[in-house]
Amino acid sequence: MNGEFTYQEIMGQGESWSKSLAEAENQFKKIIAHLKKPWSEVIFTGCGSTHYLSLTAAARWQSFTQMRARGIPGSEIWLYPDTILPSKDPLLVAVSRSGSTTETIKAIHVYKERFNLDPIVISCYPDSEMMLTTNYPFLATGATEKSVAQTRSFSSMLLMTQYLMVKTASDEIKFVNQLLQLPNAFNILVKKYENIIKHLSKEQKFQKFVFLGSGINYGLACEAMLKMKEMSLSISEAFHFMEFRHGPMSMVADDTLIIGLLNDVTQKDELKVLNEMKAFGATTLVIAESAKDINADYIFELNSGIDPILRGPLYLPSLQLFAFYRAIEKGLNPDNPKNLSAFVELSD
Amino acid sequence: MNGEFTYQEIMGQGESWSKSLAEAENQFKKIIAHLKKPWSEVIFTGCGSTHYLSLTAAARWQSFTQMRARGIPGSEIWLYPDTILPSKDPLLVAVSRSGSTTETIKAIHVYKERFNLDPIVISCYPDSEMMLTTNYPFLATGATEKSVAQTRSFSSMLLMTQYLMVKTASDEIKFVNQLLQLPNAFNILVKKYENIIKHLSKEQKFQKFVFLGSGINYGLACEAMLKMKEMSLSISEAFHFMEFRHGPMSMVADDTLIIGLLNDVTQKDELKVLNEMKAFGATTLVIAESAKDINADYIFELNSGIDPILRGPLYLPSLQLFAFYRAIEKGLNPDNPKNLSAFVELSD
Repeated sequence: MNGEFTYQEIMGQGESWSKSLAEAENQFKKIIAHLKKPWSEVIFTGCGSTHYLSLTAAARWQSFTQMRARGIPGSEIWLYPDTILPSKDPLLVAVSRSGSTTETIKAIHVYKERFNLDPIVISCYPDSEMMLTTNYPFLATGATEKSVAQTRSFSSMLLMTQYLMVKTASDEIKFVNQLLQLPNAFNILVKKYENIIKHLSKEQKFQKFVFLGSGINYGLACEAMLKMKEMSLSISEAFHFMEFRHGPMSMVADDTLIIGLLNDVTQKDELKVLNEMKAFGATTLVIAESAKDINADYIFELNSGIDPILRGPLYLPSLQLFAFYRAIEKGLNPDNPKNLSAFVELSD
Repeated sequence: MNGEFTYQEIMGQGESWSKSLAEAENQFKKIIAHLKKPWSEVIFTGCGSTHYLSLTAAARWQSFTQMRARGIPGSEIWLYPDTILPSKDPLLVAVSRSGSTTETIKAIHVYKERFNLDPIVISCYPDSEMMLTTNYPFLATGATEKSVAQTRSFSSMLLMTQYLMVKTASDEIKFVNQLLQLPNAFNILVKKYENIIKHLSKEQKFQKFVFLGSGINYGLACEAMLKMKEMSLSISEAFHFMEFRHGPMSMVADDTLIIGLLNDVTQKDELKVLNEMKAFGATTLVIAESAKDINADYIFELNSGIDPILRGPLYLPSLQLFAFYRAIEKGLNPDNPKNLSAFVELSD
């Protein structure tokens, strides 16, 4: 069957999250002292999906901990460190499913040479090259994948960054408890929306997909854009909500589905953008904690009761399923996207 | 004639740059003390084109001055300051053609309230609302525009950020002299390439345009992407060179033109990406200082002799002309893009 592995990996995310959380406490004990050093800032890095993970993790980290944090592609740290790295010690958090991505490994080496420090490395494979570069590895357990496109690995590693964030900055047990509620919230969500998504993916008029997200959700919008591209070979883009009005919306027409990842506090301003796009002919779909006060063509309600800063992994499953079903609809195999391989190794 | 104003504004960039530079020294005297304060970092901000200007200006600034610098969309500072702003005093440099963009004005107010500081404001209009928020305005003279899509205003305001960078960090007269050489280099460039670009814009097989740039050139690649979208309503995207291999390249086929904005030092690694895309069927076009050692379908050689950190404005004119001629070819009017207005004012 086309997409057999991808489907299992998407639908098994709740289970992966539970496994990763069960192993987190023990691993955290070995890295807590390192995490709590007085860093000048935290730089998350990765490539492709894990770069987008870095963007959303950094925004969450700074907002939750009040420590400065940024997400930067591994290749940019490797090739252009002077445009990025601060003069005083930053903490590098390198994220890679395989632990073998050449650019992220090169970024780690630039970091180690410049600052004589070890990064935190988050990965799904314990013995990979990247894990061996540091004394501070942090594993997302049970999140390895057979598919090329990252789904459960992405959400599990995002969850691990949130675990580190919560445990580094707060003694409040309620935050860890909220992380533990995510698997159950996931199960409710996919049961509720899978059939609607399947139906939506058959809609032939949608030829362009735009994912909008801001603040802590911008990186998630980018990841959803990438899933749609990789699995279904559709035209898809991601922008900050307001940025979309500064030019990119020139392309909006009847063939456009705009997907908004709403933030609780700012959704009024975000919905204004979506309503304007409806006037240009677009169809709108939103993902939000609550459907209250929302006017859109499709609404996916998370209804999680979980703090916005920890709720991130729940935005993704519906959008992963959407990309998956659209690929199936087009006769493509989402397990093996065109032109791609499971990880990118550069030759010298 | 379709695109009359846009054409004049693109072709008149050399003249705009000369005018802006002629007025720079006198304006700089009034803001130098402010610029040289011990800022924790420099945050460039804008919306749409000026956000992309902020990205390329920040990378240049940090690389040249060794002061930490970032580019952030105005709306993100306004709506999500806690994900971005540091605890200690940063310098905000707000860039806006009109000086009237609501989100950037709101970002300035967030900054002023939080830090009790004035930003530097770079604009083309002296008496706009934004200019009145600060004691430190910096004007790009003779760069106002009648068209919606920014061309000479973009390059002139980028030039002004480079002027501030050079004068803040270095006493070496050679850097200012290099800025003064840009108008002449511009004139040579457009004369050399306009006919080739006109010819290239008629090529019907190109349906997708991808702009790749990294480090100091990433923001320029984004701006070129936006020009192609706004003026010619074509599918266009921008990525960091290496990031493109992590998923987005799944869409590459015979209908794809990949445009690479090469960096002198890293062009070997950047060309590897382009050559791989040729194997997937893409056509490649590069812009580089020298054609030496470069293998691509089309090569635009800058041949400027100007330091890479100051050469940025020269990457744009060819790409602006390309978007312009493609719009003309499609029967569109580049002066008035679909769905857009000259600046974005939000209602409350």
